[in-house]
Amino acid sequence: MEQREDQTEIATNAFNRDLNRLKDMHPSDIAENLEDRSLPDIRQVLRELPDEKVAEILTELPQDIQTDLLENMRLERVSDIIPEMYSDDAADALGGVSAERLQEIMDQLPDEDVEEITTLLEYEADTAGGIMRTEVNAVLTTLALSEAREAIRKDEDQDQDNAIYIYAVDENERLQGVLKLRDLLFRDLRLKVADVMITEVRSVSVNADQEEIANIFQKYNYLALPVVDDFGKLVGLVTSDDVIDVIQEEATEDMQRMVGLSGEEMVTTPWSRSVKNRLPWLMVNLGTAFLAAWVISMFEKTISAYTVLAFFLPIIGGMGGNAGAQTLTIVVRSLALGEIEDKEWKRVLVKEIIIGSVAGLAIGIAVGAISWLWQGSWLIGVVVFMAMLLNMVAAALAGVLVPVGLRAVKVDPALASSIMVTTVTDVVGFFLFLSLASLALKFVAL
Amino acid sequence: MEQREDQTEIATNAFNRDLNRLKDMHPSDIAENLEDRSLPDIRQVLRELPDEKVAEILTELPQDIQTDLLENMRLERVSDIIPEMYSDDAADALGGVSAERLQEIMDQLPDEDVEEITTLLEYEADTAGGIMRTEVNAVLTTLALSEAREAIRKDEDQDQDNAIYIYAVDENERLQGVLKLRDLLFRDLRLKVADVMITEVRSVSVNADQEEIANIFQKYNYLALPVVDDFGKLVGLVTSDDVIDVIQEEATEDMQRMVGLSGEEMVTTPWSRSVKNRLPWLMVNLGTAFLAAWVISMFEKTISAYTVLAFFLPIIGGMGGNAGAQTLTIVVRSLALGEIEDKEWKRVLVKEIIIGSVAGLAIGIAVGAISWLWQGSWLIGVVVFMAMLLNMVAAALAGVLVPVGLRAVKVDPALASSIMVTTVTDVVGFFLFLSLASLALKFVAL
Repeated sequence: MEQREDQTEIATNAFNRDLNRLKDMHPSDIAENLEDRSLPDIRQVLRELPDEKVAEILTELPQDIQTDLLENMRLERVSDIIPEMYSDDAADALGGVSAERLQEIMDQLPDEDVEEITTLLEYEADTAGGIMRTEVNAVLTTLALSEAREAIRKDEDQDQDNAIYIYAVDENERLQGVLKLRDLLFRDLRLKVADVMITEVRSVSVNADQEEIANIFQKYNYLALPVVDDFGKLVGLVTSDDVIDVIQEEATEDMQRMVGLSGEEMVTTPWSRSVKNRLPWLMVNLGTAFLAAWVISMFEKTISAYTVLAFFLPIIGGMGGNAGAQTLTIVVRSLALGEIEDKEWKRVLVKEIIIGSVAGLAIGIAVGAISWLWQGSWLIGVVVFMAMLLNMVAAALAGVLVPVGLRAVKVDPALASSIMVTTVTDVVGFFLFLSLASLALKFVAL
Repeated sequence: MEQREDQTEIATNAFNRDLNRLKDMHPSDIAENLEDRSLPDIRQVLRELPDEKVAEILTELPQDIQTDLLENMRLERVSDIIPEMYSDDAADALGGVSAERLQEIMDQLPDEDVEEITTLLEYEADTAGGIMRTEVNAVLTTLALSEAREAIRKDEDQDQDNAIYIYAVDENERLQGVLKLRDLLFRDLRLKVADVMITEVRSVSVNADQEEIANIFQKYNYLALPVVDDFGKLVGLVTSDDVIDVIQEEATEDMQRMVGLSGEEMVTTPWSRSVKNRLPWLMVNLGTAFLAAWVISMFEKTISAYTVLAFFLPIIGGMGGNAGAQTLTIVVRSLALGEIEDKEWKRVLVKEIIIGSVAGLAIGIAVGAISWLWQGSWLIGVVVFMAMLLNMVAAALAGVLVPVGLRAVKVDPALASSIMVTTVTDVVGFFLFLSLASLALKFVAL
């Protein structure tokens, strides 16, 4: 018994040391430290920390851990923590819990929080409504600056710590203008808000796509943008730190989707989930690979007579695939950044065809010359040259038309686009090369 | 003559209408509108706009147009415009002009601007020093809040419009703490800065890498971070709008470099420059493609006896290439986001090998069964199955080891990594498949 008590004591001491170390850390660092631990361990730590800190840590944990914690924590604790979170973070965290549990939690929360969170949960995750917070400094246009100042000082719910702008609204909460905190510091406080505010204030619709919002922030260098509903009512605020997360997410998504990944896979995703995510597109890719194999099989006789032709298949296919990937990457990225407007894709197509032709000539001549030297047949050289040149042009066409076409049918231009482009360059490349070779063989022996 | 005068008048009227339309636009929109025009046209428009507006437009124009304009504008105009720009934007714009012209411009500028710009030009473009602005609100810790307030009101050079924080420094300009604008509004103005400031203020070194800074902003949701030199002296400010640009740039760079692009190519890059950028890696790719071709050529006899083997080459190579691209994308992106720390790559490697084995089994069984049915030979099925499985594992290995290896030798993990991984999957895949087939053929006829 004594020994067991010792062990308990040692464990308790270790836990306390760990806890003291964690307590001094930034909530984001605590979250990073906790995310690799088991759920019971995480809960044990969080039990010892104050509500406000737990709220901040929860915000920074991965979605699945947030959900687990909210499902398993004591209900009273949850109802203490949620009001400490920004409304958008609370909505994100609650988005994953079961409908039943959500109801239980909502029943415990103050009406005001319930209303805000319910509204936020209704917006699509990738719109302004999905990323905005509802805490926003707003004052009536009719107030004097001195009154506006008092209003802001009093309103505890407002996000004062990081306030950059104060928005001016009319009696129906419709956005009318913007003040700077500096105006309250340096202007005559007897002036009215309406006299001092800038009336040309840019806002985004609550339904605006997050990628579009990111492009606006990037173009105009904003730190925050107000969000309005269909009636012009001020409903929230998107800040540049939200936008940073959006941009990272969107870039990750595009990179992943191009090669047939889910867009959300991380190094920490369990391997079983990764397999489940990756297999579908690999299976599609298998289908397209058999298509390429079938094209080759149509030329069985030719290859059987001239086995050397088989050596050149990976050169024609591989080079076309890489040139296509270069064009595709430029186009997918430019589409995401809003750099290609509606009809500009035609100009991009022309440019890429020119690049494909010029690079195709250069690569074609190199590959043709090497092939001629290697196999000692000028005809092989000519056939490889022509197939290479034409396949590079096909790669340019596919690299532009695949993503532009996907967008035209309202699908993410990145989606499995790399797989599709490679299919085109393989199929077209093999067909061109082998049919040119067959044709040439009718006239001259290799 | 009369007709010509009419034409001149029509042209003048059109120009004035165009100008009036532009005048009402946001500088970023004016820049977007101008960037497709000829240099003389752009200069004609800018001549009609006030210095301050031109400064803002210039900032938003592509680097090459900035350089052209600064080289060709009247020197007096340049010396009026530069002081209107943020120091970081001015340094960026001047970074491209010839040494001679730079000297001429600097000779015209106030000493203060020269000093700031010269300092900024010395920092590497992709460090905190390269992206920060030198305009930063700073007050002495010994001031009373009322004095701090007056100091900020008076200092016209400071970036007051978008000020979020006010930094507190000692007499040697070393960073000591941070105040919020809100403290000046609501706290007792007789208090000292030192009494009110938060002393735990995070800063970054002027030499810190911009990607690292972006990860800090993302993790901690900052809107701005002070930059200090090696002595702790406050030298600048990085704001989240700078970071948004960095993040977009870095993501574009990674996506492009993976497929052998320069990292800076845009849809608007002239085709001749694109060809020059893309050809080198395409030529390297040609070398690796010949390597794959040479591997196939080693099995000339086997293929000559069994032509059907050639059909399966694009399946083995293509599937391996795609699986490798999936792993590579996850790893390159996670490295960029700082998600894989020093020794964690081993865990990632193990996970990817498991995924490669499991997905390889699934794909291998599918591809083996189809091959058996297609060619009516169970032996072909078995050989294809084994080669596929093993190549998927090789793809996992290459997808992790190529970027991790590049980073270990201090090269960008994205650099041409896709080309390298495809080389491995082609070479290994073809070798495995053809040698397994040769071996099998020694015992059984296909």
